[in-house]
Amino acid sequence: MKARIHVTFKAGVHDPQGKAIANALQGLGFSGIDAVRQGKYIEIDLAGSDRAAAERSVKDMCAKLLANPVIENYRVDIDAP
Amino acid sequence: MKARIHVTFKAGVHDPQGKAIANALQGLGFSGIDAVRQGKYIEIDLAGSDRAAAERSVKDMCAKLLANPVIENYRVDIDAP
Repeated sequence: MKARIHVTFKAGVHDPQGKAIANALQGLGFSGIDAVRQGKYIEIDLAGSDRAAAERSVKDMCAKLLANPVIENYRVDIDAP
Repeated sequence: MKARIHVTFKAGVHDPQGKAIANALQGLGFSGIDAVRQGKYIEIDLAGSDRAAAERSVKDMCAKLLANPVIENYRVDIDAP
């Protein structure tokens, strides 16, 4: 089973990396860029076939290690095996 | 319009950050983890409403700045405005 996790900054949290990307893109001549936000994307291959248990486990991983719940949101999607 | 970009390592490319996450999760007592891969997730808010032009432009951004095409794949999804 594969879990796909998106970790993104909460709205209002300053994102210097996104700002740097926006500036670099403008420097390269790209126009029409209103905002850039950078987050993390993590794929985890899991043993087992219990989808609900996998989702609980991965959400626990997010809360304990993968995301900082104070400033970041996370979204977990579990692919069917 | 919002572009959602996933940048991931190509298959076979060594991913030390993913390996570190896998080790840390095992250290925290999570079991059944076969593999972890870490990538980047970037959201770009774009002016304009031409979806095809936006997709071309964002793919160009990926090739020039956001991804390293030698070792990374990228996927671009454009949300309707």
